Amino acid sequence: MPITKFVMPEVIFGKDSLEQAGEACVRIGAKKALIVSDSGVAGSGWLEKVIQSCREAQLSFSAFIDVTTNPKDSEVEAGCRTFIDQECDAIIGVGGGSALDVAKGIAILATNGGRIRDYEGVDKIHSPLPPMVMVMTTAGSGSEVSQFSVIVDSEREKKMTIISKTLVPDIAIIDPQTLMTKEADLTAMTGMDVLTHAIEAYVSIAATPLTDVQAKNALTLVSRYLRPSVASRTNQEAKEAMAMASLQAGLAFSNAILGAAHAISHAIGGKHLLPHGEINAILLPYVMEYNLIAAPRRFAEMAELMGVDTRGRTQREGGNAAIQFVRELSADIGTPRRLGDVGITREMIRWIASTALEDACMITNPRDMSMAQITQLLENSL
Amino acid sequence: MPITKFVMPEVIFGKDSLEQAGEACVRIGAKKALIVSDSGVAGSGWLEKVIQSCREAQLSFSAFIDVTTNPKDSEVEAGCRTFIDQECDAIIGVGGGSALDVAKGIAILATNGGRIRDYEGVDKIHSPLPPMVMVMTTAGSGSEVSQFSVIVDSEREKKMTIISKTLVPDIAIIDPQTLMTKEADLTAMTGMDVLTHAIEAYVSIAATPLTDVQAKNALTLVSRYLRPSVASRTNQEAKEAMAMASLQAGLAFSNAILGAAHAISHAIGGKHLLPHGEINAILLPYVMEYNLIAAPRRFAEMAELMGVDTRGRTQREGGNAAIQFVRELSADIGTPRRLGDVGITREMIRWIASTALEDACMITNPRDMSMAQITQLLENSL
Repeated sequence: MPITKFVMPEVIFGKDSLEQAGEACVRIGAKKALIVSDSGVAGSGWLEKVIQSCREAQLSFSAFIDVTTNPKDSEVEAGCRTFIDQECDAIIGVGGGSALDVAKGIAILATNGGRIRDYEGVDKIHSPLPPMVMVMTTAGSGSEVSQFSVIVDSEREKKMTIISKTLVPDIAIIDPQTLMTKEADLTAMTGMDVLTHAIEAYVSIAATPLTDVQAKNALTLVSRYLRPSVASRTNQEAKEAMAMASLQAGLAFSNAILGAAHAISHAIGGKHLLPHGEINAILLPYVMEYNLIAAPRRFAEMAELMGVDTRGRTQREGGNAAIQFVRELSADIGTPRRLGDVGITREMIRWIASTALEDACMITNPRDMSMAQITQLLENSL
Repeated sequence: MPITKFVMPEVIFGKDSLEQAGEACVRIGAKKALIVSDSGVAGSGWLEKVIQSCREAQLSFSAFIDVTTNPKDSEVEAGCRTFIDQECDAIIGVGGGSALDVAKGIAILATNGGRIRDYEGVDKIHSPLPPMVMVMTTAGSGSEVSQFSVIVDSEREKKMTIISKTLVPDIAIIDPQTLMTKEADLTAMTGMDVLTHAIEAYVSIAATPLTDVQAKNALTLVSRYLRPSVASRTNQEAKEAMAMASLQAGLAFSNAILGAAHAISHAIGGKHLLPHGEINAILLPYVMEYNLIAAPRRFAEMAELMGVDTRGRTQREGGNAAIQFVRELSADIGTPRRLGDVGITREMIRWIASTALEDACMITNPRDMSMAQITQLLENSL
C-alpha cells in the first residue's frame, strides 16, 4: 500500500448539538465569529439557535446570510469583505453545502488574499485558515467534514473544485433534528448526493481501508433509510441514520475523492445552476454502468450492502444488481431520471464533456474516460 | 441518540511513512522537538530513520530514550526536565504504547505543570499541549491516535488511566514495515491487545456508529491476519493488515472507551509490571463470557465478522462461538491462557479486584460489576 493520509475534524453529533456551536468556536480561540448562512436556514429557525449559542458563550459575531444555491465567487468575496470590515477572527458556517462552501471560501480569502479562482484545484492554499466550526443542516454535501469547497466561477460559468487539507474544519456539528424541516424533494435529492459520495468514494482509485469503512456504512444506511426519510419529515430514526450516512460518506469522499458523476455534475451545475443532488441522481446509474468493468468485485459488494442476495451470482451480475437498486431507489423517491428532464440538450453535451474532463474529481474515477466515452455516456443519459 | 463526539489525529499510513516525521512536525509549527523513545526502538534502526527525517526537515531536536515497559511517573518527569532544559516546543513519540504514553505525559507536564498523577481520570488537563507527532512501531496500543495515556504511579503501584481529548496527537504516523522487526511473541500479545480494544469498544456503552465501523473492521482484520502475522516476520500483507487493525481499534476505543478487561489489566499491570497485551489475552474470553448477556446481538455479530457461520444459531450461541474463536486464536498463537500462568495468585485477587473497580475503563463496561462478580471472574481465570 502506498502512503495514504486521512484527516477529519472533531465531530459533535446528535440532537441539540447545534446549541454547542458558540462554545465550540470559543474553545478553538475565536473572539469574534462571522456566521455564514442562507435565508432558508434563517427562516427555519436553526440559525437563531446558533446565534443564541454564541450569545450564551459570550462570543461576539457578525452574520453574512446572502448565500445562494450553487454559490458564486461574488458571494465569497462579499462575505470576505464583511469578515474583514467586522474584524472577525473565526467562521461558523450554518447550512447545507452552499453555505458551508462559501464559509470555507471566505476563510481562504481572509488569510490568503487574492481571488477565489486562484485556489482552484488541489493544494493551492498556503497560509493557515481562521478557526472554522461547521454546522450541517442538510444530509448531503458532507462539506462539514470534507477538504472540499465548490464555488461557481461566474465568468467561466463553471464550478471550481477546491481541494486542500486546510479546508477540513476544526469542528463539525451535525444535529439530525435540522433534517426535519426539509421538504421531501430536497431530502430526496440530497440523499442521492450522499449515495453518490459513498459509491464514488468506494470505487475511487484513492480508496483506502479507512475510507472504505465509512463508505460502506454510509451505503448501508442510505439503502435502508433514504426511502423512509423522504416519506416522513418526522421519522427521527431515519433522520439520524441519514445524518450519519451523510457524515460518513463525507469522510469517505473527503479522503478518497470522487469520480465521473461529480466531475460531470460540477460542469453542469456551474453552467446551468441546477441542483447538485438532482444531477448526481440522474448520472449515478450511468456512471456505475460505465465504471463496472473497473471494479466488478466492489460493485458486487455494494449490492450486498444494499441488501441484495448475491449468492450464486457472478461479480458482474452483482454489480448490475447494485445499479438496478439505485434506479429503483431513484424512481421510488421521485428524483429525475434523465438529463433531458432537467433541461439539458444535445447541443450542451460537448461543452459539458470537455469541462468535466478537466475537473479534479475525474482523476480518481476508476475507469479512464475519453472525450468519445464521456460524450456517449451523456447522450445515453439525455 | 445522545450527543456524541469523535476525534482523531491526521493519519499518515504506509510503507516509509515514518520518513515524514520531521516534516510533519515542522508543518505543525515545531522549532525544536523532543524525540521520546526506548532502547528497543533505537536498536531496531527505526529511531535513526526518524532522526534522519528531522535533519532533512531542518528541525532541531533532543532525544529522551529512557522509556521502559509499563512506563512510570518518574520517566515522565525526567523526560519533562529534558523538554524544558533543552527548550523544546514539540514532541515526537517513536515506539509502542509505552514510548507514546510517556511522550503524552511529558506534553501534559510541559504546559500544565504539577505531577502526572494530578491528571488521572477524565478531562483533568486544562492548558493546551505542545504539538505532538506520534510514530507507531507496534501494532498494539493505539496510543498514536487515542485520547489515552496510561502511566504507572510508583507509590501506589497502579496504572493511572488519563483520558482527555487534548491527548489526541496532531499527527499519527503508521509505517507497517516497523512490525517486521518484532519477535513472534510480541506480535502475538500486542495483536491480542488490538483484539481486546476492538471487542471492548464494540460492546462499550459509549459505542456509536462512528466507533462501530472502526471496531468491526479491526475485528475482521485481526481474525484474518493475526495468525499469519505471528507466523512470519516478513509477511507484508499481514503486517499491513495488523497495522491497520491496530489503528482502527485505536480509533474505536479512543472514542468509545473500553471495559472490564482493560480495567483489570491496568490493575494487574501497575502492580506486577506484566506485559499489558498478555494480561488482556488471558482476560478477554472470561470478560466476554461475563458480558455476553449485556449485548448478545453484538457478540453474535462479532462471530460473523470472525468468519463463523451463525445461520440457524441464536444470538447467545453466536456469542459463544465468538468466545470460542478468541480461545482458539490465543491457543494458536501461544499467548498464556490463565492468570496463574503469569504468576498471579489467589492472595492478589482482592487488591486487583478493588483497584480495577476504580479504573476509568470500568465505567463503559456493558455489564455492571460488583466486588463479588469481579472476584469470581478473577478466580475463574486463575
